[in-house]
Amino acid sequence: MARSSLPPGRIVPAGSNNDARGRLLDAAAQLFTEFGYEGTAVTRIAKAAGMTPANMYWHFPSKQDLLAEMLTQMYAWSHEYLVTRLPADGDPTTRLAAYVRAMVHIQIEALSESGNHSYLTLATSLEPKRREELAKQQRQFLVILKEILEDGSTAGVFALRDITVTTFAILQMCEYSFLWFRSGGRLTVEEVEDEYVALALRLVGAAPQE
Amino acid sequence: MARSSLPPGRIVPAGSNNDARGRLLDAAAQLFTEFGYEGTAVTRIAKAAGMTPANMYWHFPSKQDLLAEMLTQMYAWSHEYLVTRLPADGDPTTRLAAYVRAMVHIQIEALSESGNHSYLTLATSLEPKRREELAKQQRQFLVILKEILEDGSTAGVFALRDITVTTFAILQMCEYSFLWFRSGGRLTVEEVEDEYVALALRLVGAAPQE
Repeated sequence: MARSSLPPGRIVPAGSNNDARGRLLDAAAQLFTEFGYEGTAVTRIAKAAGMTPANMYWHFPSKQDLLAEMLTQMYAWSHEYLVTRLPADGDPTTRLAAYVRAMVHIQIEALSESGNHSYLTLATSLEPKRREELAKQQRQFLVILKEILEDGSTAGVFALRDITVTTFAILQMCEYSFLWFRSGGRLTVEEVEDEYVALALRLVGAAPQE
Repeated sequence: MARSSLPPGRIVPAGSNNDARGRLLDAAAQLFTEFGYEGTAVTRIAKAAGMTPANMYWHFPSKQDLLAEMLTQMYAWSHEYLVTRLPADGDPTTRLAAYVRAMVHIQIEALSESGNHSYLTLATSLEPKRREELAKQQRQFLVILKEILEDGSTAGVFALRDITVTTFAILQMCEYSFLWFRSGGRLTVEEVEDEYVALALRLVGAAPQE
């Protein structure tokens, strides 16, 4: 199920998995985001994927396995989306702009069709050990951003205060953009991305890109 | 249970409620944040509060009632903490600094003793109608911040881009500070507050307060 490219405008490609395992993951993603982890019965997931519970258990021995795999895939997709959009040899300002644009895009596109439960909320339903594994995956997004900030600081194009606090501030500002963005609202996705890029450049003390 | 002042360094004053209702709310807050809403049996809450389940149901007919009241109180306390720290007639820069300082303080102090489940996560376990009620309460924090930004823009001390996006960016940057702050780490609570104030002033395009 490795993907070399992502469908435009949708991070988690629902319906694109035609094998049984993929159909179960799609069904789980849809039901978990709508009804929450606890609010989704495993039998319902099996039914939505068009198979028997016994068949489902063959692929995923527990609901925890389904949740863990669904979240792991989501973060793997997001990570791939991000890194393919980061110019490897760009200057720090260009890389920061690309990072923010991709992260905001991931958040507001990936969550636009989901219901009440974000991936961040669902992750709290994971057993401690699985949550630790996922946290390692999530940390990659932080590491990439911190590296960009360090490069910009070294090159003298960013006037940073505390690099760690600034890294978290930018990440969290972007990560929770889905909480307020409404498709079809005042701003288009691209305009929202533009705004967040401008805000991030302010946070690092860089000259704005006009 | 109205409070005219808050205990220093603790937003949700666990153990300060000596009546049965208060003891139940304290017990619920502790257990929900440690084990989650679904992971906490009502009988366990009653036991922790030193009473029988029947006695508990007399005060709170359902676990949803307990959760809703606990969250409502938490946001009411936070709101009171915030407004008592906002200088009513201060200039926009001073008010923004006070706002950010209070919000970061609320987040990292209120969450410092809690476990795996934040109030934001717990709120997703509320029934839709109760969640709407809570959202109204949460929106107050946004309204206060937006007003400060509008005043600063009108007064010409803030050079804002999009006022709505900037409002959300500041709020979310502060709101999720608890995700990374560790007590006893490199920075003190006050130093973290200072950093966030400086970042917020950058976001609104204000002259830094040194």
